[in-house]
Amino acid sequence: MQGEIIITGNELMTGQVAEVNARYAARRLHESGLPLTCITMLGDGAPLFEGVLHQAISRSGFVIITGGLGPTDDDMTVAQAAQVLNLRLIQDDGMLTRIRRRLEERGFAWEPRYGKLALIPQGAIILDTGRSACGFSLKYQDTWLFFLPGIPREMRLLFESGVLPVLTAAAGIPGQMVQRGLRLFGKMEIEVQQAVHAIEKEVEGVEVGFYPEFPEIHLTLTARGPERAPLQERLDRFVAALSRQVGEILLGGDGAPLEDVVGRRLREQHKTLAVAESCTGGLICHRLTNVSGSSDYFLGGVVTYSNQAKMDLLGVSADALGQKGAVSPETASAMARGVKKVFGADFGLAVTGIAGPTGGTPEKLVGLVFMGLATPKGADTRRHHFPGDREMVKTLTAETALDWLRRE
Amino acid sequence: MQGEIIITGNELMTGQVAEVNARYAARRLHESGLPLTCITMLGDGAPLFEGVLHQAISRSGFVIITGGLGPTDDDMTVAQAAQVLNLRLIQDDGMLTRIRRRLEERGFAWEPRYGKLALIPQGAIILDTGRSACGFSLKYQDTWLFFLPGIPREMRLLFESGVLPVLTAAAGIPGQMVQRGLRLFGKMEIEVQQAVHAIEKEVEGVEVGFYPEFPEIHLTLTARGPERAPLQERLDRFVAALSRQVGEILLGGDGAPLEDVVGRRLREQHKTLAVAESCTGGLICHRLTNVSGSSDYFLGGVVTYSNQAKMDLLGVSADALGQKGAVSPETASAMARGVKKVFGADFGLAVTGIAGPTGGTPEKLVGLVFMGLATPKGADTRRHHFPGDREMVKTLTAETALDWLRRE
Repeated sequence: MQGEIIITGNELMTGQVAEVNARYAARRLHESGLPLTCITMLGDGAPLFEGVLHQAISRSGFVIITGGLGPTDDDMTVAQAAQVLNLRLIQDDGMLTRIRRRLEERGFAWEPRYGKLALIPQGAIILDTGRSACGFSLKYQDTWLFFLPGIPREMRLLFESGVLPVLTAAAGIPGQMVQRGLRLFGKMEIEVQQAVHAIEKEVEGVEVGFYPEFPEIHLTLTARGPERAPLQERLDRFVAALSRQVGEILLGGDGAPLEDVVGRRLREQHKTLAVAESCTGGLICHRLTNVSGSSDYFLGGVVTYSNQAKMDLLGVSADALGQKGAVSPETASAMARGVKKVFGADFGLAVTGIAGPTGGTPEKLVGLVFMGLATPKGADTRRHHFPGDREMVKTLTAETALDWLRRE
Repeated sequence: MQGEIIITGNELMTGQVAEVNARYAARRLHESGLPLTCITMLGDGAPLFEGVLHQAISRSGFVIITGGLGPTDDDMTVAQAAQVLNLRLIQDDGMLTRIRRRLEERGFAWEPRYGKLALIPQGAIILDTGRSACGFSLKYQDTWLFFLPGIPREMRLLFESGVLPVLTAAAGIPGQMVQRGLRLFGKMEIEVQQAVHAIEKEVEGVEVGFYPEFPEIHLTLTARGPERAPLQERLDRFVAALSRQVGEILLGGDGAPLEDVVGRRLREQHKTLAVAESCTGGLICHRLTNVSGSSDYFLGGVVTYSNQAKMDLLGVSADALGQKGAVSPETASAMARGVKKVFGADFGLAVTGIAGPTGGTPEKLVGLVFMGLATPKGADTRRHHFPGDREMVKTLTAETALDWLRRE
């Protein structure tokens, strides 16, 4: 069973906002084994809508329509659809009551235009989120039709509760589906693909979706069957096999962000961390503190853009800075040891490099980065050369430094 | 003259990547006064493509097609288009020579499949970026057709050089167009809209596009006419009037990011800055250092997540922390003065607050933030309460703190 999506919204025709509903639905349909053949975007109440809907119904097993269900004049989806389907609009009294109650709860007065929200084509089934916006579904000839609100949060709620279960059942897709997300960092997509293909022969019945999200690669594993327990076990085996194949590049087994994985390991070991940043300018601290509860293990950091600050705050020696330079293994190591000491942390992580586009020299090119990691056992440094512009160098440096810490 | 866009790519049908080409083209077309009526997305080489293209040609003045121009088997756009248009494919010898030369330059061997890249429908005009991918344009009956590569960078190059000038000329839109971007922060969109509507009556002939980019509002001003100088002058008058109306919420007159505006003012005044962050966890430093050359005025910062670090690194007194708490005007002020002193900077900016979702108390709710600013003249503090989740509180705090600094 193949399907289509029709999205309405003037803001899409003017490029004012990025489209998110179709992408969300496309990904979830793909993960669920329901192929999508076409996405059409139109302005609000566009005359083209009727022809597009008619055509989609004539060639597809399902059509998902979002937007145009609101109370204003340019919300014309329901009236246009009734025209195409040649169905009468009827008032759903239960819906009307709920709308009145919700308006009251929020202190809004009833207005006649809200009556429109309770009009649905004859035979349609209301999909209610319990919030402001609702949608409805309708089987028309051999095609499933779903009308959903354009507000992304409400669209997603209804998609998960009222669209996906209906379609997987109609398509004869076995009732149980188990999914797991994974994140990888440190290898090319092609290498990860080869590893995955090898494992697909070993552990059968797992579909793998690839989602490159720079600088990481995200995977979604899906298994389907009559019972959940064997599916869980199948995914466990797949993840274990992948972990053996690709080793340390798998960032934990549950798809959590790198900063979460690092934080969890620190918390488990009752260790604390402090960070000294030069070229990343605060990005590593920013990522670490995006995790709620990070104050349990993250004591803080310093951003030392000047040599003076490296000396004053971190105790980097004038010698190291003078003879070896601010971008050197000696400085990276001294920064890591310094920040560990200043904050009284168990680990000190430091980066110093040239993010560009200016500041490079023939000896020290833009993208050259040294990292230092001070642990209870001692200190170590690494040298990297990252490609790309300032933003890319910052992103790659932060990811690589956090990943180093994770592996330690 | 109205138009459509057709985008091909399997990764769009599976939700693997976010669509960017159509959004870019939609925005640029809208800014240029060329309305868009429909965007259709299809898989690579989809059988539906021919019907969709045929229909688009029959109803639109222009059709922009991206993707499917490469050398692989699933790049079928050119062959499919030739079928729909009933045109022969011919080999462009100049193109073939350029392809051979580019392959050579990169050390790739010639393969027969590359021959496909030089095949275009009879009558088409090659649009060459000088890079790997090319496109072509074609006037078919009354419709302008543009075939562009799917790689966003190359698509944009060709769109600006080979599509927009042709369409604006064909649509009889006056040759000269002057645009200016503006950013605003600190008022609701509705208030900005009211101000803009008032000015539109005062300064005529300026089109205004609204692009809310949380937490800012971005505007694009467009003026069209036969000569550039009066258009520039008209936009200057508009910006001046807007500045009088909305005051300080206009972040500079040229659409530069807030961290750029702050940096420019510091550089002009030969002043330096240091930052102490608690709840923003490094985000303010990260934003400041996204600006190339920021090391000229940004000396560095500290992220003090623990009370101990606030005392040790910034000299915040145990009294202030104990009696007033880490989230208090006293601590914010002490942090600002402390970081100013430690780095020897002219300005010290500090934030301390509760980003949530945990850590709130009945007296100090999640979202409560105090900011401190130490200047050569003294120190000042401000109290804010921001809505939303952890990410939103961090974003709003960083923006508000940088904006306060800008106004000082």
